[in-house]
Amino acid sequence: MEATDLRAAHAALRETAPLVHCLTNTVVQTITANALLAVGAAPAMVDDPAEAGEFAAVASAVLVNVGTVQQRTAEAMRIAARAAGDAGTPWVLDPVAVGGLTFRTELAADLAALRPTVVRGNASEVLALAGAGKGGRGVDSTATPEDALEAAGELARRTGGVVAVSGPVDVVTDGTRVVRIGGGSALLTRTTGAGCALGALVAAYVAAAAAGDPLTGTVAAHAHVALAAEIAADLADGPGTFPAQWLDALDALDDDALTRADLRTDD
Amino acid sequence: MEATDLRAAHAALRETAPLVHCLTNTVVQTITANALLAVGAAPAMVDDPAEAGEFAAVASAVLVNVGTVQQRTAEAMRIAARAAGDAGTPWVLDPVAVGGLTFRTELAADLAALRPTVVRGNASEVLALAGAGKGGRGVDSTATPEDALEAAGELARRTGGVVAVSGPVDVVTDGTRVVRIGGGSALLTRTTGAGCALGALVAAYVAAAAAGDPLTGTVAAHAHVALAAEIAADLADGPGTFPAQWLDALDALDDDALTRADLRTDD
Amino acid sequence: MEATDLRAAHAALRETAPLVHCLTNTVVQTITANALLAVGAAPAMVDDPAEAGEFAAVASAVLVNVGTVQQRTAEAMRIAARAAGDAGTPWVLDPVAVGGLTFRTELAADLAALRPTVVRGNASEVLALAGAGKGGRGVDSTATPEDALEAAGELARRTGGVVAVSGPVDVVTDGTRVVRIGGGSALLTRTTGAGCALGALVAAYVAAAAAGDPLTGTVAAHAHVALAAEIAADLADGPGTFPAQWLDALDALDDDALTRADLRTDD
Repeated sequence: MEATDLRAAHAALRETAPLVHCLTNTVVQTITANALLAVGAAPAMVDDPAEAGEFAAVASAVLVNVGTVQQRTAEAMRIAARAAGDAGTPWVLDPVAVGGLTFRTELAADLAALRPTVVRGNASEVLALAGAGKGGRGVDSTATPEDALEAAGELARRTGGVVAVSGPVDVVTDGTRVVRIGGGSALLTRTTGAGCALGALVAAYVAAAAAGDPLTGTVAAHAHVALAAEIAADLADGPGTFPAQWLDALDALDDDALTRADLRTDD
Repeated sequence: MEATDLRAAHAALRETAPLVHCLTNTVVQTITANALLAVGAAPAMVDDPAEAGEFAAVASAVLVNVGTVQQRTAEAMRIAARAAGDAGTPWVLDPVAVGGLTFRTELAADLAALRPTVVRGNASEVLALAGAGKGGRGVDSTATPEDALEAAGELARRTGGVVAVSGPVDVVTDGTRVVRIGGGSALLTRTTGAGCALGALVAAYVAAAAAGDPLTGTVAAHAHVALAAEIAADLADGPGTFPAQWLDALDALDDDALTRADLRTDD
Repeated sequence: MEATDLRAAHAALRETAPLVHCLTNTVVQTITANALLAVGAAPAMVDDPAEAGEFAAVASAVLVNVGTVQQRTAEAMRIAARAAGDAGTPWVLDPVAVGGLTFRTELAADLAALRPTVVRGNASEVLALAGAGKGGRGVDSTATPEDALEAAGELARRTGGVVAVSGPVDVVTDGTRVVRIGGGSALLTRTTGAGCALGALVAAYVAAAAAGDPLTGTVAAHAHVALAAEIAADLADGPGTFPAQWLDALDALDDDALTRADLRTDD
């Protein structure tokens, strides 16, 4: 994969304006919705069992993020994941803080067995979900993406999908190919929700991508987030003013901008 | 109605600082509270059946927005709407995404039968609530306010209240009179929660307005939002920096500013 | 206590980066998480009974804020408060809108009986929790901190902890000593969540403080918030642009800056 391949992914995203059904944690719903709007997608947050299946069946993609999960939304997540699978709709699993908490760790294992199109998390979360670690410190990772590379590859082969591990250099793999995305800004970790919003952008990009190539869509989302973060870090005065600048930059980047991504492929 | 009539509506809002009880979706609670604070009202979010009736009975106005409704909050909404009706307190119904999802569509029909003082939604939502359409795409409208004008008038006559349809030019009607509000900015649709916050501002204005004239209060809220959006669009660099500027402008506008609203009345 | 004592409190906060487990209201989760990140702490929002006890036992501190409480989260709050107490982990109770609503008033009384390390609220809330008042108007106080001083002292002696009353001049007491913190900005009351975020910063500071001295940590959190607000008020154009500037300033203040706090001690 070359950075020039991301031009088409971005063009497809802008053209199709995918409707992304988000079952996500209440801390990050606002920035997640705003990030989707900024890149030209349409967000909708529907997280009750009474509606989750009906909506997942008509959405372009589904995001399942277990950040503030409860019994009710856990049930909605199971329903939405199954409805997406039945409809052939791509869906993304974000296993926030999995490993350290029993309830969500069991839930995430069940969801992973439903074969998410993409799993996106930090290294500790991916290690825990793959059965190779006990999780991080709260929502923070205590491992690096490279530490999680082998587990990520194994998990990807098990789900038949893509696994993305966020960090200073992100690692994305489908179990065979490995793509690394550099750049970005440390400010992404100093404001809540940037990683969770990235999960939603992965869903949007994968929905827009050519069928059968979730790897490119996943990489494009990571590149888009990293490039926008670099612009925003230059304009912001700190972690408080960063998110608004980041959203402006997500909006402003065009197809060509994506080709400036810092991609590193193994082959 | 003339734009000069809005001066008194704004003065009343600033003077009375109404306490607005919001049962609204979790995506937009923050910007809704901040918009109410910006215009001088006092927000309070209380959405559990254990407290909703007790609080609705003492609030100046109640907002019911079904955006992320669940069984628990649906029950709270029914209780709050009844308590508001019993107390003669004005209340606003925002039928987010009604039409496309069975659970909330039935809930919204029940709530509409409780005769909300104002219904505020986009064209697809108003058409669906009036029984004349099947809803939009997620939370987005697939129709224009003019498409919904007849249904809005019919719905207003049925509820005995006001119906407001948001769009590039907003349409507000009490079933007899029709007022259109132009201006605003497309950026209002590129950030989450502006429409939902508008619903809360309608509640605040109607609480402050002279009894028996919810039409003027509803129009004033729409004009206030549109005028602030124009100022904010000039100052913002994109959808990320827009909301903060919009809140600043909501705060900065004075009584006279409202008289510059782009109102268009039929008569 | 002198303002120079706050230097060590801030240094300890930066060095220990405490993990703060927040059970807080959904309106303010985002700004609460961002305020914790800005001062160098690690936020985690876990508010379901299925996980609250497990997480409280490993966190550095726990925040319990009843702002949008429901039956489910009320149960989680009881579990987390008990787990914190059993583990000797400091925890903060923020009795939002207590007094005016029966369900949360009873809950807060039960939680206060579990002896929170710190209670932080406005004057009406502290008066109501101490059994000396009926609460304010929604989430707003109708009394001043000085009105609540006697009740605060009595409550502190009952819980064996610290009680902090927010207002134009904050009052913090452990039932014997009284410290007042001046400064700040009225804009803190024109944006949602600043007070609630302050409760989380109290939890972070108390976790980082030397054992047995929650008073200094509580005062340091109030001073940090007030000093940052003064900087932000100079840079902001209104209540909309204020929060981002306030977060930037929370991040930018260093150990020495805390010594410029406007502290007033009785002795």
